[in-house]
Parts: sequence; structure tokens; C-alpha cells
Amino acid sequence: MNAEFANPFLQSILNILSTMAMLEARPGKPEIKSDDTAFGDVTGLIGMAGEKAKGTLAITFTEGAILEITKRMIGEEVTRINDTVTDMVGEITNMVSGGAKKLLSEKGYRFDMAIPSVISGQNHVIQHKSKAPIIIVPFTTEAGNFFLEVCFEE
Amino acid sequence: MNAEFANPFLQSILNILSTMAMLEARPGKPEIKSDDTAFGDVTGLIGMAGEKAKGTLAITFTEGAILEITKRMIGEEVTRINDTVTDMVGEITNMVSGGAKKLLSEKGYRFDMAIPSVISGQNHVIQHKSKAPIIIVPFTTEAGNFFLEVCFEE
Repeated sequence: MNAEFANPFLQSILNILSTMAMLEARPGKPEIKSDDTAFGDVTGLIGMAGEKAKGTLAITFTEGAILEITKRMIGEEVTRINDTVTDMVGEITNMVSGGAKKLLSEKGYRFDMAIPSVISGQNHVIQHKSKAPIIIVPFTTEAGNFFLEVCFEE
Repeated sequence: MNAEFANPFLQSILNILSTMAMLEARPGKPEIKSDDTAFGDVTGLIGMAGEKAKGTLAITFTEGAILEITKRMIGEEVTRINDTVTDMVGEITNMVSGGAKKLLSEKGYRFDMAIPSVISGQNHVIQHKSKAPIIIVPFTTEAGNFFLEVCFEE
């Protein structure tokens, strides 16, 4: 299950949302992802690479969840997925991977981070092309759901 | 324009397509990308990270182009974007970044590569969240077009 790689990301996003968006997110059971659908409307994606391991983090938000998170983080109402929202998805992706990077370095895995990409478009499908399992963690919030996916190989 | 980072990817994809798919691709004029649309049906995306620089490579294929490239590389007809095709997009993305990595290391930039992701879905939009310019190079082939995008920051 490779939870060693997933847990730092889980901790990192809970920490960021509670301190910066004052939003309580409840993680569901981590599972091995068995299909490719992104389960959401906008995805932040970032590559992480190091000498001992490499991987990808993807965070897919439903529209309701990301509009509420953006509103709480910038203090302004947003009504649709626009550049303000995709910038926020990029920022959150950067912060979550940065937080996880610190936690992973304490376990002896040093990573450099690539540049975050943000993918939008209804029914977009993201596949991580790796033989390593993809771990997906669903989160529920009062404003909607989001999903965190990590795929790491050593 | 940061062509120092774009040229190794351009060389690498031309080399791979001519030797492995026997397909001649003609590069158009590199431009700074000004909008977000992926101009295609399936995209391979990979992060590259190093101490001196970091970035992302995206290769977006029209359906016609990737079906023809896949046919030539595996020797079998494919009629739609299925897992065989998205696997091929992942492979090509890996090979192009691997080839460019070698060329960039000769210029003093050492990178580790993340895991390739493949995004499909009509009208998907990919944004690279960086202050660095995004360089896009269009390619034409007898089977259709594809686009290479690189975004690197030092």
C-alpha cells in the first residue's frame, strides 16, 4: 500500500486547509485506485523527483469544494472555476507537496519539486503511468468533496 | 524565450519519431503560449526537477496523429484513444524527457524525472502555474498535428 508515501501528503493537506482556509476536511479510507476517472472538475498535478524515489501528486476538487476553499482563502466570493480558482489549485498543490517534502526528508527521502500544472474540463481523465500502485484518499467537507492521489516508485 | 530549455526537447522528439515510428514531423515556429487550451485530445505530462532548475514537459496530440504514431510503433491498427494509446503517450513522454535530460546535463543542468501522467478528455485545459514563459512548438505530420510545451524556471 506504500502508506509511507501517502501519509505525509494527507497530513500536509489537512494542516493547510485547517490553518489557511479554516476548513475541516475528513479523510476517508485510502484505497488503491482501480479506474482512471478524476472524480472532479479541476485537478492540481505536480511531479516530485529524487535519487531514491520519484512520484506524482494529484489533487482533484469538485467545483463546490474548490469554490468554498478559494472563498475562504482569499476572502472573496467566486462563482465559477476561473483563473483565480486555478491559481489557488496550483498554490495548494505546491504547498501540499512542499509540506510532504519536509516530512519525507525526515524519513530519508529527498525530493525536488517540478512546476504544478492545473487541469480543468469536465470528465477529464488522468492516468499515472507507473507500475506502482496509485493510492487515492477521498475527503469530505461541508462544501463538497475532493480526492488526493499519490503514486510513487522507488 | 529560454530556447536553451526548449531545444533539447524538440531534438529529442524528432529523433524518437524518426527512428522509432519512421515518421517525419516538421516543427513550426516556437512561440510563447498565450492561452490555455491544449489544442488536442490526449496529453502526456511529466515533471522534471533539479537543484538549479525545474520544469514541466507536456506533449499534446490530436487523435489522428497519436493513432498513426501508435500504429507505426506497435505495428497494429488502433481506431480510438484506448489504454494502448495512452500507454504509448506515457512512453513517448518518458523517452522525450529522458533524451532531453541527457542533452541538458551536457549544458550543466541535472534533472531527475517524475512519473508521466496522461490526460485525456475532449477540451481539457492544462495550465502551467509558473511565472516562467511557456514555450509551445507546433509540429505537423502527414497524420495530424501535435504540440510540445515546455515551462522551466531557474
